[in-house]
Amino acid sequence: MRIAAERFEAMTTSLFDHPLLGQLVGDTEVADLFSLESEFQAIEIFEVSLAQASGKFDLISTDAVKAITEALDKFSPDLKALISSSVQDGLYIPELVAQMRAHVGEPHGQYLHYGATSQDVIDTSLALRLSKILPILERRLASVISVLEAHSIAFSGNRVMARTRMQNAIEIDAGDRIANWIDMLADVQRRLAPVRKAVLRVQLGGAAGTRDRFDGKGTEIADEMGKMLDLNGAGPVWHTNRVGIADLANWLSLVSGALGKIGMDMSLMANGAVAELKFSGGGKSSAMPHKQNPVGAEILVALARYNATQLSAMHQALVHENERSGAAWTLEWLSLPQMIMTTAGALNRADAICRQIQRIGA
Amino acid sequence: MRIAAERFEAMTTSLFDHPLLGQLVGDTEVADLFSLESEFQAIEIFEVSLAQASGKFDLISTDAVKAITEALDKFSPDLKALISSSVQDGLYIPELVAQMRAHVGEPHGQYLHYGATSQDVIDTSLALRLSKILPILERRLASVISVLEAHSIAFSGNRVMARTRMQNAIEIDAGDRIANWIDMLADVQRRLAPVRKAVLRVQLGGAAGTRDRFDGKGTEIADEMGKMLDLNGAGPVWHTNRVGIADLANWLSLVSGALGKIGMDMSLMANGAVAELKFSGGGKSSAMPHKQNPVGAEILVALARYNATQLSAMHQALVHENERSGAAWTLEWLSLPQMIMTTAGALNRADAICRQIQRIGA
Amino acid sequence: MRIAAERFEAMTTSLFDHPLLGQLVGDTEVADLFSLESEFQAIEIFEVSLAQASGKFDLISTDAVKAITEALDKFSPDLKALISSSVQDGLYIPELVAQMRAHVGEPHGQYLHYGATSQDVIDTSLALRLSKILPILERRLASVISVLEAHSIAFSGNRVMARTRMQNAIEIDAGDRIANWIDMLADVQRRLAPVRKAVLRVQLGGAAGTRDRFDGKGTEIADEMGKMLDLNGAGPVWHTNRVGIADLANWLSLVSGALGKIGMDMSLMANGAVAELKFSGGGKSSAMPHKQNPVGAEILVALARYNATQLSAMHQALVHENERSGAAWTLEWLSLPQMIMTTAGALNRADAICRQIQRIGA
Amino acid sequence: MRIAAERFEAMTTSLFDHPLLGQLVGDTEVADLFSLESEFQAIEIFEVSLAQASGKFDLISTDAVKAITEALDKFSPDLKALISSSVQDGLYIPELVAQMRAHVGEPHGQYLHYGATSQDVIDTSLALRLSKILPILERRLASVISVLEAHSIAFSGNRVMARTRMQNAIEIDAGDRIANWIDMLADVQRRLAPVRKAVLRVQLGGAAGTRDRFDGKGTEIADEMGKMLDLNGAGPVWHTNRVGIADLANWLSLVSGALGKIGMDMSLMANGAVAELKFSGGGKSSAMPHKQNPVGAEILVALARYNATQLSAMHQALVHENERSGAAWTLEWLSLPQMIMTTAGALNRADAICRQIQRIGA
Repeated sequence: MRIAAERFEAMTTSLFDHPLLGQLVGDTEVADLFSLESEFQAIEIFEVSLAQASGKFDLISTDAVKAITEALDKFSPDLKALISSSVQDGLYIPELVAQMRAHVGEPHGQYLHYGATSQDVIDTSLALRLSKILPILERRLASVISVLEAHSIAFSGNRVMARTRMQNAIEIDAGDRIANWIDMLADVQRRLAPVRKAVLRVQLGGAAGTRDRFDGKGTEIADEMGKMLDLNGAGPVWHTNRVGIADLANWLSLVSGALGKIGMDMSLMANGAVAELKFSGGGKSSAMPHKQNPVGAEILVALARYNATQLSAMHQALVHENERSGAAWTLEWLSLPQMIMTTAGALNRADAICRQIQRIGA
Repeated sequence: MRIAAERFEAMTTSLFDHPLLGQLVGDTEVADLFSLESEFQAIEIFEVSLAQASGKFDLISTDAVKAITEALDKFSPDLKALISSSVQDGLYIPELVAQMRAHVGEPHGQYLHYGATSQDVIDTSLALRLSKILPILERRLASVISVLEAHSIAFSGNRVMARTRMQNAIEIDAGDRIANWIDMLADVQRRLAPVRKAVLRVQLGGAAGTRDRFDGKGTEIADEMGKMLDLNGAGPVWHTNRVGIADLANWLSLVSGALGKIGMDMSLMANGAVAELKFSGGGKSSAMPHKQNPVGAEILVALARYNATQLSAMHQALVHENERSGAAWTLEWLSLPQMIMTTAGALNRADAICRQIQRIGA
Repeated sequence: MRIAAERFEAMTTSLFDHPLLGQLVGDTEVADLFSLESEFQAIEIFEVSLAQASGKFDLISTDAVKAITEALDKFSPDLKALISSSVQDGLYIPELVAQMRAHVGEPHGQYLHYGATSQDVIDTSLALRLSKILPILERRLASVISVLEAHSIAFSGNRVMARTRMQNAIEIDAGDRIANWIDMLADVQRRLAPVRKAVLRVQLGGAAGTRDRFDGKGTEIADEMGKMLDLNGAGPVWHTNRVGIADLANWLSLVSGALGKIGMDMSLMANGAVAELKFSGGGKSSAMPHKQNPVGAEILVALARYNATQLSAMHQALVHENERSGAAWTLEWLSLPQMIMTTAGALNRADAICRQIQRIGA
Repeated sequence: MRIAAERFEAMTTSLFDHPLLGQLVGDTEVADLFSLESEFQAIEIFEVSLAQASGKFDLISTDAVKAITEALDKFSPDLKALISSSVQDGLYIPELVAQMRAHVGEPHGQYLHYGATSQDVIDTSLALRLSKILPILERRLASVISVLEAHSIAFSGNRVMARTRMQNAIEIDAGDRIANWIDMLADVQRRLAPVRKAVLRVQLGGAAGTRDRFDGKGTEIADEMGKMLDLNGAGPVWHTNRVGIADLANWLSLVSGALGKIGMDMSLMANGAVAELKFSGGGKSSAMPHKQNPVGAEILVALARYNATQLSAMHQALVHENERSGAAWTLEWLSLPQMIMTTAGALNRADAICRQIQRIGA
């Protein structure tokens, strides 16, 4: 086979980034927020806001703030050096900060990243992206609920067979089953606000999380950054307190789990012998052209089980020894972005298949 | 070896129930709420309150209410029949209801469990026991926090070495490290109220979760039961909406995870080469009489990792197909009680070792 | 309600030990090997064989061997002291050894447990019990396969609907589906021998796993114990090399997973709308007397998902830091016995429901 | 910041594919086998070998074989159509087969993919890539062992402190600790052969796994393909028997788990207060220029815990209902490639840090 050269390199390790299958499980809107571009933008925003807030509290000079702000706008990193430093340092921030400082030049370069540590940059960068991601998830969740509410009105009065322990029980109204789906989703919807509040926070602790190089103004500077970045006020440093992040992971898995239950129900209802639900546009089979596979419903089950598994890694990462655990923190990096993509993708799939429903019950 | 006969049968399958090691990981106070006695008491409370609430709304007669209430007080189940029916039915409630009805006798026996299904009994019984367990956990959490707050005052000013990526970083105040521990615990403490509200609910749905046999008064009856049992008003049936239960599991693992981080820190601090923390009364070794093992600190790590794993099962159980999933529901039964014991035991261990601390930092 | 007093204390924390529901998920034959009696017997066997093997290699005197062997036979431990020492030491072996030595008395008591450490006793005790458990599991697996082979002959020629992606595909022979079930089970059956070989090993390492107090004869003594106990020769100490144990956990979950797939298929086939499989003696419902629930099939799914979760804990426990990890080792204790019970129970359930099959296909 | 446009799109969802951090946790050699190019090559190899084997057994004509073989060599797929069909069908094979058939043209196009189904292509494509990946992992494992063996010789005689329960126990020889590491790795090394044999198998089952369209020659054709592709003979179809795949996942996690134990030990040994191990070239910190972080050792712990988690998903996927489970199969796709990358990366990291060791013990 022959493919255009640039596609040949496309990676398939993560199904979410698979060049062909990616959209089956994920989507492009949230994926964009996990591009290198987004990562770098967030880093720049962190460093500029840190400089400006530090300037406001006279930790660094107005000239330094100006020099840093202007220089970063035109800064172009040496990616190759970032790659080689990543393997040695476990992250590329030390090298990137060195490059940025060199680009700013002296005497102001030394005031870039002043008092901060790599984890401050990375955790705040995560919070900044979550501040864009969570509203997307919230909107999609509301959309799925609203489509189901329309179905509830449309198909109330139709009968479906209640099944308990996989066996026929008694007939119920189609609206009862749909109402149960909506209840689950409304329950997870309600839980978003406190989760969001806890994770959309500036991280600013310095080397050991004690804000030791901010001349006692660390909290004020972090609060000021919070205002600039539309994140919550500083509160205590969360370098090793990962309760908020683990709680977000729980919420992500509650969403995908609730959608997995709905997908499982729909899979069973769409089965030919049951025929309680009719989709338009089911998936094709390479061997059986007559089939109409409710692919999206199954994907919801797969995504639910995947997130239920990843959640365990995020809770293992709570055991974050000492003042910074390279092991536990890297474990978060391996797990959380994929959990976010899972939930984002599940909401997309759920929305799509709910809109493909032509009939529930009879 | 020779042991008194009745101890020979004691089971060691679950470490929490191990006749010798049980208190190492768990405790007796919460364990008592998972005795058969507690289970039966909760079932009786459910059936009596259902009868009384149904009576109030004229679903069953005052005579039936009286007969049921009086008879249950003296009822003694045939355990052998319950055992054999369990394997066949997947639970013992159908057989127990049959026995209770026979004990009440006609004409009133038929009104016991009227309109309810096994899941109503079991889920409400869980909620009743959680209403006793959660305050115990809350009290213990407050106790650990208060011991740590006292240490924070006592040892502030002492120095400890901050360690990032397991390597020495800079010296910090012992109070800074303790403050971080307290922050984590305060974070999980704050999260209890909404979790509790969501799970302390009556379950009353009948065969397929539609309250179909309550003459349209199912919600009122469930609300009335909520008042009697000091549980929340009915709201929607949660037969297959396990979001509340999964969220409780998350909370339990957040608690044990936060304690695991503290235990890990203490293990590392107590190491002879580091010597930043001194416990009284460490554990003995059978081979090295000179050792003082900070056993409780390690147990906290083990319990954190155990709960982080179990949480995955509780989220898998969200995929609760149709109107009742024997598979997902049984998976909850296998996992949730052990998660509760894990958290209860971790709080006990944490409290004990925090009280054994003689010195932090130098 | 009123129940005979001694049953009131029965614990329900672990579903496997639940006084009423235990046999739904487990069984009594394997459970017996997790009684305190079995645990103590195995400990006695370890200490006696250690003494005898040490005597053979002149590490301890013939008189000491005789004194230890005779004394242990009549030894009755002080359970109360074992309980209180467990919490402090993380295990009860140091206290038990002290009691046993006191019972033997001087001058020979000091030669009991000579050169050994607690982990030697506990790991060898596990191996001894596994040497009884694995043949039980093997026998049950063979039994399930043989029942399925009989069904394969009986129902070949009958048609069932192949379902791919939960939708009807093409009709296939009932024998094809059964053959696939048998293939899975035969695959796990084949994998038992190497797993068994790796775990049925004596553990004898002493304080730090270096056999430092055996005068250079540690390997010979361990080999001699292997012959006495019908376990494999010593090989390297496995104090912190838990690959064999983790691999056993994998095998246990492969068995329950394969049975879970079969249970899932049977659940779907038994559904009234599909009616491809007919069981005798299904489970009752407390609300719907007409139902026949294939409870055992669902239990297989629950047990598969439970073990798939526990396996993660056993692999987390591979990270067994230094020469003995109290955290990782305790995590094994929390998880492995339940995994064994899960697989043992799943095989029992599978055998029972396979024998209840009256018809597959039509 | 400004970055060259094409890098802006690079995805960071999966840490393994992160354009900067990828090599920290993974590597490029194994990653190449998860490129779209490798995926398409494997698909082409499958379809050509199927045609040739089918030709040999006269299922399709010699002309058809020739036409298919020649046409596929020059075939260039319409990627855009593959993407849009993926979301609808859950995979892109049906569309790709349609494109390939159109490219071959009639009368021979219909004989491409003759008798096969999408799962045959995808599973065999996985086996083909595993046949290249497993030798890479095997070679790396041997390399790590050999570096450790050299250290064992070099540092035997040096003393290190054995630590049990995280506390100092007794001094041991550095060689004893290294020997234990080697034992673990040798144990997993030994386990590869049977795992490999079981997964390097052709998949050829057709629509429902019954080889129904091969005129009774399905087994012969599959065996012939096995010879062509250097994979094992056909044996039973493994469409829904995922024991081999789950067992591979176990092996991958045993490897990363064993390396995680070694990484944990090294992290603890490299700590300044312990100083039992000295690395050259540790990682930098952005806040503390004096630090030398043993980043690779921590990464090994993170990768071990990640794989221990993913393994659970692969065992959940054993519950592969009916003749093909879109849910369970997609769950494998989400998990297995990342597990492979985890183990491949862990071996790379382990090899690198072992070579950086300058001293163990004193």
